[in-house]
Amino acid sequence: MDYLGLNDLIKRALEEDIGYGDITTRSLIPAEQKARGLFVAKTPGVVAGIKVSQAVFAYIDSATEFEVLKDDGDTIEPGDVIAVVKGKARTLLTGERTALNFLQRLSGIASKTRKMTDLIKYSPAQLLDTRKTTPGLRVLEKYAVSVGGGRNHRFGLFDGVMIKDNHIQAVGSIAQAVATARQKVPHTVKIEVEVETMEQLQEALEARADIIMLDNMDIYEMIEAVQIVAGRALLEASGGINEGNAAEVARTGVDFISMGALTHAVSSLDISFDIVE
Amino acid sequence: MDYLGLNDLIKRALEEDIGYGDITTRSLIPAEQKARGLFVAKTPGVVAGIKVSQAVFAYIDSATEFEVLKDDGDTIEPGDVIAVVKGKARTLLTGERTALNFLQRLSGIASKTRKMTDLIKYSPAQLLDTRKTTPGLRVLEKYAVSVGGGRNHRFGLFDGVMIKDNHIQAVGSIAQAVATARQKVPHTVKIEVEVETMEQLQEALEARADIIMLDNMDIYEMIEAVQIVAGRALLEASGGINEGNAAEVARTGVDFISMGALTHAVSSLDISFDIVE
Amino acid sequence: MDYLGLNDLIKRALEEDIGYGDITTRSLIPAEQKARGLFVAKTPGVVAGIKVSQAVFAYIDSATEFEVLKDDGDTIEPGDVIAVVKGKARTLLTGERTALNFLQRLSGIASKTRKMTDLIKYSPAQLLDTRKTTPGLRVLEKYAVSVGGGRNHRFGLFDGVMIKDNHIQAVGSIAQAVATARQKVPHTVKIEVEVETMEQLQEALEARADIIMLDNMDIYEMIEAVQIVAGRALLEASGGINEGNAAEVARTGVDFISMGALTHAVSSLDISFDIVE
Amino acid sequence: MDYLGLNDLIKRALEEDIGYGDITTRSLIPAEQKARGLFVAKTPGVVAGIKVSQAVFAYIDSATEFEVLKDDGDTIEPGDVIAVVKGKARTLLTGERTALNFLQRLSGIASKTRKMTDLIKYSPAQLLDTRKTTPGLRVLEKYAVSVGGGRNHRFGLFDGVMIKDNHIQAVGSIAQAVATARQKVPHTVKIEVEVETMEQLQEALEARADIIMLDNMDIYEMIEAVQIVAGRALLEASGGINEGNAAEVARTGVDFISMGALTHAVSSLDISFDIVE
Amino acid sequence: MDYLGLNDLIKRALEEDIGYGDITTRSLIPAEQKARGLFVAKTPGVVAGIKVSQAVFAYIDSATEFEVLKDDGDTIEPGDVIAVVKGKARTLLTGERTALNFLQRLSGIASKTRKMTDLIKYSPAQLLDTRKTTPGLRVLEKYAVSVGGGRNHRFGLFDGVMIKDNHIQAVGSIAQAVATARQKVPHTVKIEVEVETMEQLQEALEARADIIMLDNMDIYEMIEAVQIVAGRALLEASGGINEGNAAEVARTGVDFISMGALTHAVSSLDISFDIVE
Amino acid sequence: MDYLGLNDLIKRALEEDIGYGDITTRSLIPAEQKARGLFVAKTPGVVAGIKVSQAVFAYIDSATEFEVLKDDGDTIEPGDVIAVVKGKARTLLTGERTALNFLQRLSGIASKTRKMTDLIKYSPAQLLDTRKTTPGLRVLEKYAVSVGGGRNHRFGLFDGVMIKDNHIQAVGSIAQAVATARQKVPHTVKIEVEVETMEQLQEALEARADIIMLDNMDIYEMIEAVQIVAGRALLEASGGINEGNAAEVARTGVDFISMGALTHAVSSLDISFDIVE
Repeated sequence: MDYLGLNDLIKRALEEDIGYGDITTRSLIPAEQKARGLFVAKTPGVVAGIKVSQAVFAYIDSATEFEVLKDDGDTIEPGDVIAVVKGKARTLLTGERTALNFLQRLSGIASKTRKMTDLIKYSPAQLLDTRKTTPGLRVLEKYAVSVGGGRNHRFGLFDGVMIKDNHIQAVGSIAQAVATARQKVPHTVKIEVEVETMEQLQEALEARADIIMLDNMDIYEMIEAVQIVAGRALLEASGGINEGNAAEVARTGVDFISMGALTHAVSSLDISFDIVE
Repeated sequence: MDYLGLNDLIKRALEEDIGYGDITTRSLIPAEQKARGLFVAKTPGVVAGIKVSQAVFAYIDSATEFEVLKDDGDTIEPGDVIAVVKGKARTLLTGERTALNFLQRLSGIASKTRKMTDLIKYSPAQLLDTRKTTPGLRVLEKYAVSVGGGRNHRFGLFDGVMIKDNHIQAVGSIAQAVATARQKVPHTVKIEVEVETMEQLQEALEARADIIMLDNMDIYEMIEAVQIVAGRALLEASGGINEGNAAEVARTGVDFISMGALTHAVSSLDISFDIVE
Repeated sequence: MDYLGLNDLIKRALEEDIGYGDITTRSLIPAEQKARGLFVAKTPGVVAGIKVSQAVFAYIDSATEFEVLKDDGDTIEPGDVIAVVKGKARTLLTGERTALNFLQRLSGIASKTRKMTDLIKYSPAQLLDTRKTTPGLRVLEKYAVSVGGGRNHRFGLFDGVMIKDNHIQAVGSIAQAVATARQKVPHTVKIEVEVETMEQLQEALEARADIIMLDNMDIYEMIEAVQIVAGRALLEASGGINEGNAAEVARTGVDFISMGALTHAVSSLDISFDIVE
Repeated sequence: MDYLGLNDLIKRALEEDIGYGDITTRSLIPAEQKARGLFVAKTPGVVAGIKVSQAVFAYIDSATEFEVLKDDGDTIEPGDVIAVVKGKARTLLTGERTALNFLQRLSGIASKTRKMTDLIKYSPAQLLDTRKTTPGLRVLEKYAVSVGGGRNHRFGLFDGVMIKDNHIQAVGSIAQAVATARQKVPHTVKIEVEVETMEQLQEALEARADIIMLDNMDIYEMIEAVQIVAGRALLEASGGINEGNAAEVARTGVDFISMGALTHAVSSLDISFDIVE
Repeated sequence: MDYLGLNDLIKRALEEDIGYGDITTRSLIPAEQKARGLFVAKTPGVVAGIKVSQAVFAYIDSATEFEVLKDDGDTIEPGDVIAVVKGKARTLLTGERTALNFLQRLSGIASKTRKMTDLIKYSPAQLLDTRKTTPGLRVLEKYAVSVGGGRNHRFGLFDGVMIKDNHIQAVGSIAQAVATARQKVPHTVKIEVEVETMEQLQEALEARADIIMLDNMDIYEMIEAVQIVAGRALLEASGGINEGNAAEVARTGVDFISMGALTHAVSSLDISFDIVE
Repeated sequence: MDYLGLNDLIKRALEEDIGYGDITTRSLIPAEQKARGLFVAKTPGVVAGIKVSQAVFAYIDSATEFEVLKDDGDTIEPGDVIAVVKGKARTLLTGERTALNFLQRLSGIASKTRKMTDLIKYSPAQLLDTRKTTPGLRVLEKYAVSVGGGRNHRFGLFDGVMIKDNHIQAVGSIAQAVATARQKVPHTVKIEVEVETMEQLQEALEARADIIMLDNMDIYEMIEAVQIVAGRALLEASGGINEGNAAEVARTGVDFISMGALTHAVSSLDISFDIVE
């Protein structure tokens, strides 16, 4: 994690939870009392965001000690201790929920991603995320996908070109749209076209699109698309892909499988924070 | 929605997605071209966040028109048009993903909440959310729970007292902890104690806790707790409650059922944004 | 002080005073010259905010040493040294006014509060602050009240319910207003009703309000109210209470006395900052 | 008021009071209910900050109507209606305390200033404020002083040079300090020297200081200083000046009287906000 | 200009200039006095940033009228009126310098870019900017380059891959560096390699780099590079290119010429703001 | 450099360049690899901003070591090593462009200023900057001018009074304008009047302006103005001054020469950052 905005994000999360003060802890726990707490796995999965959790406690009190036992990307089983936190009891009690909210969500994403990448690991296809992320958390959620073994698609509207129906209509044709984009956007960025039919695929190929997204095609269409393209563009399968059909999609020979559910339909991984002394 | 911080949240979400510019749209769509788009339901559920979506487009261009057909709290069926947006084609294309990311997540929470409240509607028990929310989105996520018919628990560490094991240990006894808190926190806030056994329940009652949370108790324990308490405190059941057992828990006579999964294990509701002209 | 926003507050205060630079100090004092300064009491009172002052100097130069001799809550007499600061002469000269502005105002509030709590110390009544605080400084000013021995009322509109005339009119009756609020606000928050007559008091009692505020009642009315309520709700006396009548009000048996003047009619305590070498 | 930072200040003040929501008003008052409220004077004084109050309501709902009957600088008597506000009942109820906190404090400052300027109005001396302002509110508080008829001293450390003891010690002499400052600070800024004795006064004069501050001098010293200086520099009297001696100080012939108490020992003016329908 | 951050940028620029107030204008110009001002060209060039200037005045007073006579990209000659501003005299006087500082710098960049693109207009080569921009103004400065007819290189470190010597050393070889990058960065982004010799060029070609930057090569090397590459990668010439040699470089057949001086060695275009009534 | 806002400025500059990540460096350089880099002069000049560059690397990783060999104000020759940076290779690669963008621009300004001050060094006239600075960078650019031996004019509209034509028209006469300003602005600030003719000069003198700016006068007019004024006000020459005529202007006897080109027509000094191991 080398994300410049991390501290701002943590600050907002803490302010949201703590507001003008943790009134329970402040009234009951002596300021100087020390404590030790453990992050413990309750279900199997993949850790992601442990350094974000560390940064949460450090934001409250920079003297808090934090020992990572299971780092981002590590597999965990129920009962595994992921990290040990030592510091003021107030810091641990006040920070635990925010730290868990980050850690559990990111680990949930990494775990789901790992499950999917395992399903396609015998094919050359790579699993991609999408822009269907939680507002404000895109950097972290895309990081969690990469921790789980997935690969990041474009980060936003600024670092990749994706030409859709509406863009094509506005310009007149796929050929024209690709040519115009190639003249105007930074030459460092590739041009992707979303297609729904073989005719569109053909047009995109002729327009020399760098990447072609096969939108909601079935397996047979994907196989045909791979044969038509024959390596002249990268192919991305998208739409309706899940645990049940991912391996089959991967075997069609597409280069990428993108899946919004990696970030928009994910359960937090069950992890507890136990204060042990 | 009367949330003062909404615009800041929308700004951060848009900046995250748009960065220095939507290079596809900017290069292909003429600045003055107009368009009309529809938010369309793809699966059944409950709408939440439609005014947030409206505010997203308004942030980009305040002249954008937005007609709400299904308001927050309304039930939707596949094919229902939720809202119609009219404005510059660039505005619609650039804003759609951010608008959907808010709307789909909030509607997912409202829909899940509605499903749970339906399960317990023949009991007086009320469904509560928790602090297990997405960092940065707590106001919106708790709002979505209320749209779905749930009730909000304390918002954060500042507007309610929750005395847990660790707090009790630090002070010596439940009696002492409740008494100390009652002296120190604003008198406008109630005092809740988390208990795991009947002995602790008895102690909390004697300490005159306002609310007692039954942590991970089974149905028989809950029934016993309700009888013991006999209206002298509010009772909140928590831990391991799901669609399978919620009705049974509600029938025990507890006042509240709290459920973290309302916000931490939720799928975005499937809603599309279709530009129609 | 565990206030997450403190540094932002200090930053704004320093920027307001320093702007693009302390042109006097910068032009006359060598960058590496050292100095030692003392905060010295000029009148008797109670210290509050000494750690805020420390944080002011630390914000300018984190290497500044700061020794606290009289901590928050300590009584001071003229001539007492409250704290000693050692560091770059520039840091001391540039930061002193901002540090004093915080320290003097907060100590003024704590001193006034102490004077008032001393007046009522032989009664069980507790002194409360209000929301009549300086915009932007509420956390600090309420903290100063607590340092002076007062107790904090609700922090804002979000952590306590206060039903006033206008709310009652809108809903129809006290009974209806209390019942509606009890259904809608977080169950962790108590419900307070403001009453001006014995009839309203009776209604509030019957509606089972948790707290009843006696607004601008005279001593005889307060005594009657205490007898009527007989412990079934907390009673807060408010309006027109000052040094002259506080003890008498306290003897009526009300639980709380709230007093806006603690924060809105307060003089800064006279404290000087003397550079001694 | 043409203060660029006003909206940020209002935002912070409202967020501090409203947090995640005004739970009383939100639960009891229908969203579309209208109301009309009056700002009414309870004691005599001078209005300051009425447009700040207007901006508070406008921040919550830009459609709120606000009619100013007594503008900044106008004298008010008990019972005078200062302004009328019309809009959503929720807006009025949620914004009233923040609007009052600004208006009462600023009017308190303007009223105190007016009282002091009236005392010296038959002399050419002008009343000055100081940097002893509430952190974060300096622009508004200095504005209130000007509304009350006072004049603003330098705003901060950046727009005026004030050479004090410590600066003199560091450089060696008043002559040297003034000469150095004159070489280094922008030539658009005057140079003021703080003196405690007639010897220092003489030195400052010879160094050609633009302004000389007589620090804590008695009336006879001030008279002597005025004679010595004879118009060669501006003279500012400072320290220990109050309602009792201001007129006498003014008659000594000094050009300015500065008085920290204008902003650091001021009571909010008593103004109420009454919702009338 | 559809830049979300523009208002923040303008706010900072105005705060920097205005601080707590334009004391000259505030004290001399009546609040309601109206004025009309003209932006007038003093030297020939290309306009860029006229809407930024408009936004500056709108930030101070949204009622200010602004008529654009020469839009971004238009050529201007001395005496040409670029825009007419009508509004409060205070708004015009207070905003003019900030508006000019934006307009003159951006027009300076556009004018310099136009001069360079004119020099190479008979070749297919395109002129590129670099990341050598003024901190905080990159979006605007790159926009000005595009207004002048140049094309934008990658915006920052996040939307394009540029492999330099140091990266190659760390990985071991160009082949390895390109392969690793291709596996890790979003597949939507092209990979550029910086080369200094024909051997490196060959390696980059074999590694299938998408773009190859010829760093500080002379004309003969560039010609050889174009022949070697033969369309298999895009070629960018960089280093030491100026008005004297740009046409010659363009004729070598390279696809792009990048030039830091477009943004780091540029004079503001001479434009005045004249208040005419 | 004691500029409170420096870190915010650096943060914005880094975020602008790095966005969500330096994808090249992150994918190719191992997280723990160390490196050493040198800032090396490529052309002669004067260093300014070396501590800003240091702060850039410190912002990314506070453990980065930075040794200054040529400090602000030092003269450099091609080949001179200005500073040595040691730390993580990722930090150096990611931060170098932002560090250079600050250092090169500020050194460019200091170098240009030094060249100009050298031209007038045998006269008592001092060289002044103006408000024609890059939006957002005024503090740094004015600092660079001072590093180069120039003197700072007023920082903004708030710390000096400059009465121009439009102000005079609004008030009626120079006499009236100066008198009004003297009554209203802080008495710590001097009053400057801009004049274009000898008549205006005479009026300004009679009005006792503190400073008079001779706007676009020729050498003979300046000489006449100096004789007329005879030390009764400070004289500032402005408009059309450049390397060719500066010495001549200085010899006229004016006190100050102001020159916008110091900040608005400046080339970045050529400095490279070389990673050496």
